[in-house]
Amino acid sequence: KNAAKIIDGKVIAKSIREKISDEVYQLKRKYLSFKPRLAIVQVGNREDSVAYVKQKEQAAREAGIDFILQKRDESITANELSKLVRELNQDPSIHGVLVQLPLPEHIDERCVIESIDPKKDVDGFHTNNIGRLVKRHDDPIFLPCTPKAIIELLDQTGINISRKRAVVVGRSDIVGFPTFTLLLKRNSTVTLCHSMTANLPEIVKTAEILVVAIGKAEFIKGDWINPGAVVIDVGTNAIKGDVEFSSASAVASYITPVPGGVAPVTVAMLLKNTVESAKRFLKESNERKIS
Amino acid sequence: KNAAKIIDGKVIAKSIREKISDEVYQLKRKYLSFKPRLAIVQVGNREDSVAYVKQKEQAAREAGIDFILQKRDESITANELSKLVRELNQDPSIHGVLVQLPLPEHIDERCVIESIDPKKDVDGFHTNNIGRLVKRHDDPIFLPCTPKAIIELLDQTGINISRKRAVVVGRSDIVGFPTFTLLLKRNSTVTLCHSMTANLPEIVKTAEILVVAIGKAEFIKGDWINPGAVVIDVGTNAIKGDVEFSSASAVASYITPVPGGVAPVTVAMLLKNTVESAKRFLKESNERKIS
Ligand SMILES: NC(=O)C1=CN([C@@H]2O[C@H](COP(=O)(O)OP(=O)(O)OC[C@H]3O[C@@H](n4cnc5c(N)ncnc54)[C@H](OP(=O)(O)O)[C@@H]3O)[C@@H](O)[C@H]2O)C=CC1
Ligand SMILES: NC(=O)C1=CN([C@@H]2O[C@H](COP(=O)(O)OP(=O)(O)OC[C@H]3O[C@@H](n4cnc5c(N)ncnc54)[C@H](OP(=O)(O)O)[C@@H]3O)[C@@H](O)[C@H]2O)C=CC1
Repeated sequence: KNAAKIIDGKVIAKSIREKISDEVYQLKRKYLSFKPRLAIVQVGNREDSVAYVKQKEQAAREAGIDFILQKRDESITANELSKLVRELNQDPSIHGVLVQLPLPEHIDERCVIESIDPKKDVDGFHTNNIGRLVKRHDDPIFLPCTPKAIIELLDQTGINISRKRAVVVGRSDIVGFPTFTLLLKRNSTVTLCHSMTANLPEIVKTAEILVVAIGKAEFIKGDWINPGAVVIDVGTNAIKGDVEFSSASAVASYITPVPGGVAPVTVAMLLKNTVESAKRFLKESNERKIS
Repeated sequence: KNAAKIIDGKVIAKSIREKISDEVYQLKRKYLSFKPRLAIVQVGNREDSVAYVKQKEQAAREAGIDFILQKRDESITANELSKLVRELNQDPSIHGVLVQLPLPEHIDERCVIESIDPKKDVDGFHTNNIGRLVKRHDDPIFLPCTPKAIIELLDQTGINISRKRAVVVGRSDIVGFPTFTLLLKRNSTVTLCHSMTANLPEIVKTAEILVVAIGKAEFIKGDWINPGAVVIDVGTNAIKGDVEFSSASAVASYITPVPGGVAPVTVAMLLKNTVESAKRFLKESNERKIS
């Protein structure tokens, strides 16, 4: 029986975070003014948001990245929130601004996201970054963290993406769609599936690389999967993925576990985006001094 | 033998243009200040650009849309060009600004496109419009004309898009990618192919709706096509499409001819975008007067 190799996201994330931590340490020694700083805006007290923010805070601190939490009451208005974001935009000591989603019902998420400076948009959700992400000969200032993590997992596992057939199930703005785009830019031929897809199992079967991000526990079964396919399971439904691990791991060549697959690398990508941003600001300020 | 029905773009375009023309006529009678106006910026004297611009001018005039041509020498700099675009942005009598592509080698097309006000970007190429195009719960101010024409052709022919399998061949910013996005938003399940796609004929075979935009005369053969598929051939290679019409029209259920398929409807969509824009500006100016 061919059991799939496990793509161990925890191990990969640990090694990425150590590299980031080293780099930050070296840059701080070399440039006194180098102090990468991430600001997270959190509205209300959702249990999941609290947990995610805490994870990000701990990861940032461990990497030598300053962390600022701007926590506001559920009652905050959209205008006040956008004003707060604009203050963070203008603060030169801050290199990354992230608004923890979801926001309360009464606030238009889009307006708040659009008020983030694209140059500090470490989540990569601003329209300007998304537009540049999909453009053929352009790149966004920041890639969204989960799609970036998926590519990182594939690359670090030595899986070739170019000229492969890929299937992405799920078309959300934060996972499915940008993952489609990144796989396309790396020259795989991708089919994007969603809740209105007819004959999903038949399409899943064509995938050499399968990415699933739908939020339905163990929805994709092992017998849908092309033997030898690489399976990236983004779903986090409590401790279950969107793919039935027991059956899928018997047919796939590689598979990510849940938990311990995509999620830890997603956090590492947020650190990476923040440090890249701090480096960019440092470079720009040095160039200004020189010229 | 089952010959495909021809999707007659000329007839469809004519009826759309008549409707636009009527609407403009009525709105002009009702609102003295309603004067839709399109400005095209043309650099140099490429033969194809001259022909395309002339087509657009004639179509605009017939529809009662004022047309302004800003023609500049090849030697213009990127800065001068962006400055010209910004003047057109600021001119309240102008509702659509279109820069005829391609621009000469020495000019960065991206910078010029980004200098267009997204509210006057009737080609729909600005990053802001592209970003909003791909976002799940957003829409751009303008859809790009060729992808919009493709959907219009399918709709007017009564072809259901939802839950279908579609294949788009070609991933350009102006045709392939946005067509992928529009088909997806209409809930078809789409595979996006390109020059690095392996086994293209096999993938083309899965399409119930096939859109081809690669710029290679008669590249797609009839025996690649799923019997009964709807074929939209965007290619314009002199008078040949990207699909071999003779063999494809024997298997498809519907097919667009080249010439006379997508291209005439593309021009009609440009008029539609311009009139929509003029209506939007009129509405905003009336609201300002009232409030
Ligand atoms: N590991 C990590 O770092 C992260 C994990 N996640 C997890 O990934 C999953 C997806 O998240 P997210 O993208 O935000 O979710 P969304 O709810 O925003 O999107 C879900 C997508 O899945 C599609 N879908 C739902 N049901 C089905 C079905 N039965 N068949 C096919 N497609 C279906 C939906 O289709 P339609 O568009 O038609 O409605 C939609 O496109 C969740 O479990 C989430 O917790 C999310 C972010 C980060
Ligand atoms: N009717 C109308 O209104 C319009 C018609 N057109 C016509 O449509 C066609 C495409 O235009 P446009 O999108 O601007 O072209 P581009 O040259 O920008 O893009 C061509 C696309 O086709 C892909 N491609 C090239 N060769 C192959 C191949 N052998 N197999 C699979 N894919 C291939 C390329 O792949 P890769 O990305 O890997 O290079 C690229 O994505 C042209 O004929 C053009 O004249 C264009 C605009 C409007």
